[in-house]
Amino acid sequence: MNYPNGIKKNLSINNNPIHTNINYGNRGMTLEGELNLTNEYYREIDKAYIYKKPTPIKITKVDYPSRDKAVIKEAFFTIPSTTDYNGIYNGKYIDFEAKETASKTAFSLQNIHPHQIHHIENIYKQKGIVFLIIRFTTLNETYLLRAKEFLDFINKEKRKSIPIHYFRENAFIIKDGYKPRIDYLRIIDTVYGGI
Amino acid sequence: MNYPNGIKKNLSINNNPIHTNINYGNRGMTLEGELNLTNEYYREIDKAYIYKKPTPIKITKVDYPSRDKAVIKEAFFTIPSTTDYNGIYNGKYIDFEAKETASKTAFSLQNIHPHQIHHIENIYKQKGIVFLIIRFTTLNETYLLRAKEFLDFINKEKRKSIPIHYFRENAFIIKDGYKPRIDYLRIIDTVYGGI
Repeated sequence: MNYPNGIKKNLSINNNPIHTNINYGNRGMTLEGELNLTNEYYREIDKAYIYKKPTPIKITKVDYPSRDKAVIKEAFFTIPSTTDYNGIYNGKYIDFEAKETASKTAFSLQNIHPHQIHHIENIYKQKGIVFLIIRFTTLNETYLLRAKEFLDFINKEKRKSIPIHYFRENAFIIKDGYKPRIDYLRIIDTVYGGI
Repeated sequence: MNYPNGIKKNLSINNNPIHTNINYGNRGMTLEGELNLTNEYYREIDKAYIYKKPTPIKITKVDYPSRDKAVIKEAFFTIPSTTDYNGIYNGKYIDFEAKETASKTAFSLQNIHPHQIHHIENIYKQKGIVFLIIRFTTLNETYLLRAKEFLDFINKEKRKSIPIHYFRENAFIIKDGYKPRIDYLRIIDTVYGGI
């Protein structure tokens, strides 16, 4: 598969991809961009209030050029202790992490920090609705993998990556749409039932 | 009331206080610091998973002094669209904003952004457990004001601040403790019942 309009390039900081203006073939938007649009749409129609958390940073230097303005002059990216997205859907707590991979064969677990795995475990035990959204960009397949199946894999397998067939057998495919782009709540309705 | 060990000084960016090392009398910790300890304690005992969101910023310049390191060289504080704290407690979605005021008479509504008020309204309609924690530092009184009573005030009153008597009559006082420091979930248990 070719990407005539763009070059696949992974830039990352602490395993968080930095989204540059790379055009992924004809889709032209990163998973993060599409999830932001999806969450905006859910808010517009009053369906759910789910937000991406700001990138965690440690600020070490701030300048005050004028009374009301502050400019951060030095800061560092820090490792997130939670997942990136959370919010509420019909009174229920929703929590997830979203990642893209260019691999055609597996999703590397190095993309998820140990802190985040621990967080997913905690939320799962607290009966929150917690999952991963993983997009295989080269295959153009996006999956919703529930915490249960994610944690099962980690606890049973010693592999450092989750093979694509595990997703095909244990995760739910999310079809691309227009509005919303990535209708993951439809999967939640079906999978978790009666929300 | 005097604060022999500290000077009351408010620094803020977009109405978010910047926490300096000011010592508030014998308490020696800001509300934010105490809430962080409280939430850590709740996590330790597996009671609830509630986190403060990172400060939202817009990054405009990043340097890469070496392959794996990134230094933010220019960034700006942006207005938050949500409240600062959210998470899960027994499967329920919890959401709140926390603010300190040095006033002895009222809490100025300028401390809460219009975006945040709108967010509180949305979460309330979605049946999330949403509230404010307001500390009157000079009076040494900390209140939990539920979204219902907060929104009632905003919708009925034209005043730009909520007088202390409104808190005394309509909010729940949170007593200082040792572990946890600010046991707001105890109020949640009582007020929202049967969680």
